[in-house]
Amino acid sequence: MNRPIVTLLTDFGSRDPFVGIMKGVLLSISPEAQLVDLTHEVPPHAVMAGAFLLKSSIDYFPKGTVHLAVVDPGVGSTRKPIAIQSKGHYFVGPDNGLFSAALKEWGIDRAVELTERKYQLVDLSSTFHGRDIFAPVTGHLAKGTPLAKLGKKMNHWVWREMPKPFKPSNRWMGEVLWVDRFGNLITNLEKKHIPETFRLRIGKTVVLNLATHYAEVKRGTVVALFGSTGHLEISINGGNAAQKLGVAIGASVLLG
Amino acid sequence: MNRPIVTLLTDFGSRDPFVGIMKGVLLSISPEAQLVDLTHEVPPHAVMAGAFLLKSSIDYFPKGTVHLAVVDPGVGSTRKPIAIQSKGHYFVGPDNGLFSAALKEWGIDRAVELTERKYQLVDLSSTFHGRDIFAPVTGHLAKGTPLAKLGKKMNHWVWREMPKPFKPSNRWMGEVLWVDRFGNLITNLEKKHIPETFRLRIGKTVVLNLATHYAEVKRGTVVALFGSTGHLEISINGGNAAQKLGVAIGASVLLG
Amino acid sequence: MNRPIVTLLTDFGSRDPFVGIMKGVLLSISPEAQLVDLTHEVPPHAVMAGAFLLKSSIDYFPKGTVHLAVVDPGVGSTRKPIAIQSKGHYFVGPDNGLFSAALKEWGIDRAVELTERKYQLVDLSSTFHGRDIFAPVTGHLAKGTPLAKLGKKMNHWVWREMPKPFKPSNRWMGEVLWVDRFGNLITNLEKKHIPETFRLRIGKTVVLNLATHYAEVKRGTVVALFGSTGHLEISINGGNAAQKLGVAIGASVLLG
Repeated sequence: MNRPIVTLLTDFGSRDPFVGIMKGVLLSISPEAQLVDLTHEVPPHAVMAGAFLLKSSIDYFPKGTVHLAVVDPGVGSTRKPIAIQSKGHYFVGPDNGLFSAALKEWGIDRAVELTERKYQLVDLSSTFHGRDIFAPVTGHLAKGTPLAKLGKKMNHWVWREMPKPFKPSNRWMGEVLWVDRFGNLITNLEKKHIPETFRLRIGKTVVLNLATHYAEVKRGTVVALFGSTGHLEISINGGNAAQKLGVAIGASVLLG
Repeated sequence: MNRPIVTLLTDFGSRDPFVGIMKGVLLSISPEAQLVDLTHEVPPHAVMAGAFLLKSSIDYFPKGTVHLAVVDPGVGSTRKPIAIQSKGHYFVGPDNGLFSAALKEWGIDRAVELTERKYQLVDLSSTFHGRDIFAPVTGHLAKGTPLAKLGKKMNHWVWREMPKPFKPSNRWMGEVLWVDRFGNLITNLEKKHIPETFRLRIGKTVVLNLATHYAEVKRGTVVALFGSTGHLEISINGGNAAQKLGVAIGASVLLG
Repeated sequence: MNRPIVTLLTDFGSRDPFVGIMKGVLLSISPEAQLVDLTHEVPPHAVMAGAFLLKSSIDYFPKGTVHLAVVDPGVGSTRKPIAIQSKGHYFVGPDNGLFSAALKEWGIDRAVELTERKYQLVDLSSTFHGRDIFAPVTGHLAKGTPLAKLGKKMNHWVWREMPKPFKPSNRWMGEVLWVDRFGNLITNLEKKHIPETFRLRIGKTVVLNLATHYAEVKRGTVVALFGSTGHLEISINGGNAAQKLGVAIGASVLLG
């Protein structure tokens, strides 16, 4: 039998043993799990950034994968802990919209509120549900426990969409969703938004180059291209576009 | 048979392949080991910070786990390399107090100085015992080699306690043991120290709120609560307490 | 049967799920693989730094290990994707010199250009060959697919050597190849270059101490020693040599 894959995505960083502790809890229940860190550097409490990064990742994992995601500013409050089944994958985390982007296309086959305490740690803190609720539930799912056993069926959940491009005039306006490690600016614009004559404005910069790969333009040149997520990215060959252009997540991008 | 779990905690950071190299040595001996990084971001040479983080983690791992910990400013000097057995867990690393906090409650069943060279790499550097001594010994423990075979029994070891709260007047004074990724200040104060009327001073700030979770107070408000380790933490809902209050590890905290 | 070990070394950092996505692709093909991160903090596009770190690591892994390395400024251009067999290990990545340092001593038994599209993802992006080509090929190698099936045999490849010490006068001049997490300056000087009376100049600093371990000198003292890679390193006991001496990768080091 294949070993069940578990992905982990959090805003817990790497300074503290939070993620390692969750893995200890999880492996105590499902010792054969194959653990894959997606990222733990989601900016603190940035639910929408976490949602975008999770969405970018799930297509590359096989059926049966359990995705444990914790970006959870409301931990300990009335926000619900949930688990979701979709296309043979499982998602475990807080009900705060963290899974909306990932599941917009995939849909939701079944969602449960994690009410069955016997699949969780005995002592429940009010600040670390990643350890006390989400990790053990993930362990049980990886081990084969059916989703329905973990809690009561939900029919309503928190749904938060990524910002969409819109047309304030006759030109598409998008925005920067994420800045990657290389300083590439990943926007919410896709192929269908691009006019025949390519022209894009971001901050004080006008970009006229639409390329297929970074090395197609001279070093230091600003260039737009469709990145590995299918989104339009603004990059500098051999440089850091976010730094050079002085823009960040949320910056507007005007086409045409 | 379950795969043996090995945790790793070091001050080696993530820039260099130090940790990956240790894993290569370890897996060459115990290919089935399930590796879990606790953290590699212990501040360089900060033995007591490493001790606190290790202590916070071990309760969440099953019997049979081997904990490899290397924060080792004295590498190559006369400090001894050791392995310890406690409650069915194993601990491998330098004899410099790194395991004291973890083993204060658990006790020590047996400790050996790692003198048996055949369980170590043939060539011994004087700067990287993590690779040459601790990783291979960990591999052998994970594979089932009895502790007693790894070296000679010790009866004395280095013991360094975490700083304890004390009473300079009639009020408890504690200190900040650790600052987590979110800027939460984790103190050495526990439930038993808290007076009926809660009041706490740290730096120039007076904290009157004792909450059960972050979201219980308004965004931006300073709050004290018992965190996931059972210690009193000082936090800012949605903010970074260490930055806002301008305090760091070692800062004094006065109750009452 | 032992689980095949796969090491990963990239300049992808830990902010983005790039590495996690590669692991998803890889494990979809070879679910039993044992994954080991060497480092993902190679400075962006720094092929030679990546080459040095890979070289420092491979001796500590067993035969059969597959090394996936991606530092790839030319992704999407005419640079070739390759896989190499050497001493029972496999190397997968871009043909840009990233493997030269590692294979200088080991030699190359066989190299192929990764032309067989059926061992790669169906859709090929022009910016993320780590995901689309290198990860699936690595998965197939880990699963036991012979190298020869993955593409056509190569007889010429890009070869980039590390900078070597030279003698501008009658004294050896070397350079700093890497600065590790502790600020230790790792040079390209080895035992054979060291004169009987040790004396070394770096920046404005003269170093007269040649020690065997850090703690041999007083805290705060600059010291030279042969580090865990066999290279001469310049360190400060309990301090950060790179910061204190104000030098970085590429700095000159004069002996004698």
